[in-house]
Amino acid sequence: MHTEQRRRAHELLRSRGISHALFADVHTITWLTGYAPPIQLGENLFAGGPPLLWYDDGHFVLLVLDALATAAGDLAADADCEVETYAGYTVEQPIESAKRLAEALGRVAGRSSLQGGRAGVETARLPMSLTPVLARAGLGEWTEIDGWFTQTRMVKTDEELAKLRANFALVETGHMAARASVRAGQREIDVWTDIHAAIEREAGRRVPLGNDCTVGTREGNIGGWPGTAALGPHDSIIVDLSTVLHGYWSDSCVTYVAGEATSEQAEIHRVVSDALEFAIGLLRPGAMAKRVDEQVRTFIAEAGYPVYPHHTGHGVGVSGHEEPRIVPYNEQVLEPGMVIMLEPGIYLPGKTGVRLEDAVLVTEDGPEVLTHYDKALG
Amino acid sequence: MHTEQRRRAHELLRSRGISHALFADVHTITWLTGYAPPIQLGENLFAGGPPLLWYDDGHFVLLVLDALATAAGDLAADADCEVETYAGYTVEQPIESAKRLAEALGRVAGRSSLQGGRAGVETARLPMSLTPVLARAGLGEWTEIDGWFTQTRMVKTDEELAKLRANFALVETGHMAARASVRAGQREIDVWTDIHAAIEREAGRRVPLGNDCTVGTREGNIGGWPGTAALGPHDSIIVDLSTVLHGYWSDSCVTYVAGEATSEQAEIHRVVSDALEFAIGLLRPGAMAKRVDEQVRTFIAEAGYPVYPHHTGHGVGVSGHEEPRIVPYNEQVLEPGMVIMLEPGIYLPGKTGVRLEDAVLVTEDGPEVLTHYDKALG
Repeated sequence: MHTEQRRRAHELLRSRGISHALFADVHTITWLTGYAPPIQLGENLFAGGPPLLWYDDGHFVLLVLDALATAAGDLAADADCEVETYAGYTVEQPIESAKRLAEALGRVAGRSSLQGGRAGVETARLPMSLTPVLARAGLGEWTEIDGWFTQTRMVKTDEELAKLRANFALVETGHMAARASVRAGQREIDVWTDIHAAIEREAGRRVPLGNDCTVGTREGNIGGWPGTAALGPHDSIIVDLSTVLHGYWSDSCVTYVAGEATSEQAEIHRVVSDALEFAIGLLRPGAMAKRVDEQVRTFIAEAGYPVYPHHTGHGVGVSGHEEPRIVPYNEQVLEPGMVIMLEPGIYLPGKTGVRLEDAVLVTEDGPEVLTHYDKALG
Repeated sequence: MHTEQRRRAHELLRSRGISHALFADVHTITWLTGYAPPIQLGENLFAGGPPLLWYDDGHFVLLVLDALATAAGDLAADADCEVETYAGYTVEQPIESAKRLAEALGRVAGRSSLQGGRAGVETARLPMSLTPVLARAGLGEWTEIDGWFTQTRMVKTDEELAKLRANFALVETGHMAARASVRAGQREIDVWTDIHAAIEREAGRRVPLGNDCTVGTREGNIGGWPGTAALGPHDSIIVDLSTVLHGYWSDSCVTYVAGEATSEQAEIHRVVSDALEFAIGLLRPGAMAKRVDEQVRTFIAEAGYPVYPHHTGHGVGVSGHEEPRIVPYNEQVLEPGMVIMLEPGIYLPGKTGVRLEDAVLVTEDGPEVLTHYDKALG
């Protein structure tokens, strides 16, 4: 599992003369191994730092807290990767997991022969306390490899598509619950808890959930976490959902109305819906990200509405917002296998707002929509 | 707000000759400032690293992602601390938040005069990519100050007690929902979602929730996240809840039974309940943590049951498990103002298990129980 990702990484590192590497960005590590630590409570209280992944000329070793080296940490998702654990929780002595992590890294690095090679390190998430360990292991100097794989991650493997599809099925459940929950008198948090409960019951497990649940009468009605704002009659509410399952993210957005929509809401909804359909049609191999962005913004502007201040879209995978970003500067050309979220919107601050979002797989035969929820207004 | 914490830190640092410091452990930062980033989805996708806190001889500057420098990030909890933000999300150019964070740190450190002083750095969570920034700022050498404040954090201020009490009120809501939800046929995840929804509706906002929701017939029935195991008639279920609100944690545990308890469950419950009452009575100023631990373990053993393999208790505050740990090695002496969780249990793997937990404030006048939920079996 995730062997294609490791093959690509090996090829890239070798082509740039890197024989050894240390990864510390959880997105890179999930992509390379399938391992995804639980995130709902922040970092595990007994962890000594982030998970690390050691690379030795094509061989990978995952360093992870003992308590997370189980199915609970989704480690079972990957059977091929060697795992080195370190001790966290114990009642026998003070918890010194940062020290234990350093020792584990020393063991793993010590088994490698660094002669003649060049090392790469993801430094933006690697604890500074590990610097001496790297020095003792012979890595006094290294090349920073932060961000090297963001482009490599764009084209999804079949295995990744399966994980993404499982997530998109969950947001479908979430949007059914949202539609049933939205009515005058409901607060944002009431709608949110109905959605989250439905998703976790469907999955049979805890599922991290983002992003927005925001009543349209808010001044900042583009998005935000649910609060105590309540839906009045005819109020719109933007429900933008991301689930995280098997280390992969989904994304999605539908706008609902409590009761009957106003004619203005119906008109805005029609324009955004048409803009989304138009955008989907643009996602063909060879299209340039910034041209797609420009065309969708122009579509909204020509309909006479203010153009949304956010991205037109973005990739999705081990993170909820990744390459290729569909934004004004991006000259990335689309390729088959990319999965792209598209999310045009129209916002009238303090009054109402509509955003609709779909996931699209770019294929040689044209765009395939991966999200299947009811986006009708109501 | 949190001025007492900063006063204590300033005193400790000065007493050890540290004139400048960089904090990177979110627990230290929450304790010193009240700032607590949202954690439910892991690190913010547009963050360049963890929040950082710069210390210059009594003056503190918080470095935080622009999008988190708002009430949404609980920053509003602290009004006194200077804040330096850095840019994260933008559609105008590639997201380079790690670089922007480094620049922000350079600006803040550059405003300090480091002549003649000694610097301290929390290294176990500080990104290695910031090493050159520290070097340019004149911090080529430093003292590692990781863990320096875990003892200092033990005695809570009135402000912290108020935040803890708000959390304990939320788990009370959670346990009422649990009691209403537990019945034969319910899966762990069904009970869990009822609890989480009740807590978030009561709070009017998203609330991170731990820890365990585990049917007693599981082989590993001490704890674990909720899954699809279903309650049969007479099955017990351990519900151990921690909420995180205002950057502070609660903790709590009640054991429920679907329908009528068996006589064995009732007997175990009586022993654990008595053990908890016994333990609470031991939490007086001057008591040593390891003696409390030993006495409670002996209580269970003398009742003829296997002694629980975990801690007897632990402190709670900006993290869910902190000093003073009530464990076999700990010679810490209890002081007024400490808040301690106590959680004896008896586990018969694959059959049933009971754990009960309360929070106790140590005072000159004796233990004050801070948790007020119904712990009756049923």
